[in-house]
Amino acid sequence: MLEPLLNRIGPIDSEAKRRALERQKNLTKPTGALGDLEHLSVRLAGVFGTEKPDPRGIAVIVCAADHAVALEGVSAYPQVVTMGMVYNFLSGGAAVSVLARGVGARVTVLNAGVMGTLEDAPRLVNRPVKAGAANIKLEAAMTLSECLQAILLGAEVARNEIALGADFLIAGEMGIGNTTPAAAITARLLSLEVRAVTGRGTGLDDSALEHKIRVIETALSRSSTVDPLEVLCQFGGLEIAAMVGVMLEGAASQKAVLLDGFIAGAAALVADALSEHFREYLFASHLSAEGGHSRQLEFLGLEPLLKLNMRLGEGSGAVLCAPLLLGAAATLREMATFTEASVEDKAQD
Amino acid sequence: MLEPLLNRIGPIDSEAKRRALERQKNLTKPTGALGDLEHLSVRLAGVFGTEKPDPRGIAVIVCAADHAVALEGVSAYPQVVTMGMVYNFLSGGAAVSVLARGVGARVTVLNAGVMGTLEDAPRLVNRPVKAGAANIKLEAAMTLSECLQAILLGAEVARNEIALGADFLIAGEMGIGNTTPAAAITARLLSLEVRAVTGRGTGLDDSALEHKIRVIETALSRSSTVDPLEVLCQFGGLEIAAMVGVMLEGAASQKAVLLDGFIAGAAALVADALSEHFREYLFASHLSAEGGHSRQLEFLGLEPLLKLNMRLGEGSGAVLCAPLLLGAAATLREMATFTEASVEDKAQD
Repeated sequence: MLEPLLNRIGPIDSEAKRRALERQKNLTKPTGALGDLEHLSVRLAGVFGTEKPDPRGIAVIVCAADHAVALEGVSAYPQVVTMGMVYNFLSGGAAVSVLARGVGARVTVLNAGVMGTLEDAPRLVNRPVKAGAANIKLEAAMTLSECLQAILLGAEVARNEIALGADFLIAGEMGIGNTTPAAAITARLLSLEVRAVTGRGTGLDDSALEHKIRVIETALSRSSTVDPLEVLCQFGGLEIAAMVGVMLEGAASQKAVLLDGFIAGAAALVADALSEHFREYLFASHLSAEGGHSRQLEFLGLEPLLKLNMRLGEGSGAVLCAPLLLGAAATLREMATFTEASVEDKAQD
Repeated sequence: MLEPLLNRIGPIDSEAKRRALERQKNLTKPTGALGDLEHLSVRLAGVFGTEKPDPRGIAVIVCAADHAVALEGVSAYPQVVTMGMVYNFLSGGAAVSVLARGVGARVTVLNAGVMGTLEDAPRLVNRPVKAGAANIKLEAAMTLSECLQAILLGAEVARNEIALGADFLIAGEMGIGNTTPAAAITARLLSLEVRAVTGRGTGLDDSALEHKIRVIETALSRSSTVDPLEVLCQFGGLEIAAMVGVMLEGAASQKAVLLDGFIAGAAALVADALSEHFREYLFASHLSAEGGHSRQLEFLGLEPLLKLNMRLGEGSGAVLCAPLLLGAAATLREMATFTEASVEDKAQD
């Protein structure tokens, strides 16, 4: 069922990258003086297939769903907060809402499986696959059919945003308890100890953290699968599946996918396992204070732009990085070359 | 002559900081989840004297001047590039022009001492104090009177930008050879070895770097002064003096001063030595690839937001950080509290 989507994800344009690299050398600055911004600009040239990339629209799709495993005491907040925060996103009072306004990004909330009934609202795609993932300590989070439904739902919402002009896709999330499935997915797909990828989430103390690690270990002991889709079904969540869909559609539509924190990282690991070329479209934003995030980024071969000790999710870190990527693209597009500006290049060149 | 300016620089508003810190705890996110953004927001509250800071205008003042020490072979580029780049700033083709457009910042160029005659142009304040600093290997860069003139010129231009709505002040620079005076100032004011604060600038090779270090050591051997203004006269440059003025006026007008790279860092060290409270208004942006920059930031007690291996100057790194600071302020101003959003706070609180 995912084949049509996955088949659309090809390599980025290496010829455009080559031209962009050449162009960076002729712009009015010492070669390399823009540092990592130059590398980013070259990657963006590859994604958008031109040495003068002109990305504009920024779409944040906040995927929301609940997790019955939250009842095991793995989060500092009650499950009802997921729904409360969805309304907060919609009324513009959440961190991602505020930061998105600041950079001109459009926020859409996708209810992929929040417990309880959400009232319809503008900017809410209200299509829960089911009322939250099952308790992964005891059983699979969802069936394969539910999982595919959630992935395709995310892809559909991303496609709509792209049709409206989005060039940067950000998959954000809300789901009380979701660092638990994210840690489970990360441990399994990267073959790491649970402890190495499990953090305090919204703020657990030492004994609650130990308990969370045991819950994840118990969950992982239920199935030895390493198939990425099966891992997502067993240990994931509906919002994580929807995020996989958002990310895959971004790559399939040759847009830049901006990676947020730890939960987004778990979704990216699944997308990466499903598609050989996916990671070429993926840009790291910040390094989350949630420990497992650095392991995810290492595996994906990405360097974060920001290290601000953020650990909020929602897409907030990725939104903050959007202006940096826009700036990188703008240097290629708008800076004068030495010849154009009649400025002498280095004496010794 | 600087007393009236220096006397206007008082401490930031600690009561507003306290209220902002309290407010961050009640916003709809786990306490601390926005990481360094929360600390930044609290500092901005102190600078602007309110727990809901609303900074808007961003002014980049690119201070330009030449340096006769460039004739000693301390730069990879000929002096004439300073003037060429001024025209490039004015026509919008330089990196800082492009990045500033992206974040809605206004760029003004201040000719504080470029060699040769610059044609008047919109956005150019064309008031050279003299045709470049003298060769600091052999003599003082400028007289005290010239130095004060350049500082007050920078302050005047900053005041104009503030009158037009600037809340963020960025002192950028252009001056072929100016990592040499910046290294000299830094070595002297921080009592460090020249080698520890001298880098490759626009791209020197090993032997040219050794030569540059010897030139700076020779310059420093001419005078043992540690008085900040006298250090600026002896080893500085006209654009560095103008940057000191921009920064001091920013603090005096209770605006946030965004620090760029190594040259800006040298100017900040002078401003900091002149005014006890100046550094409370100063925000680090990026960590320059020019080695001495980290020593400057350490001394000033600042953590850079970005580490992108940039080494361009012009104000480019500071401009890139402006959206991060705007975002930090916006969280205080626009995020809902738990009560406002009717979201439950932590169960255990």
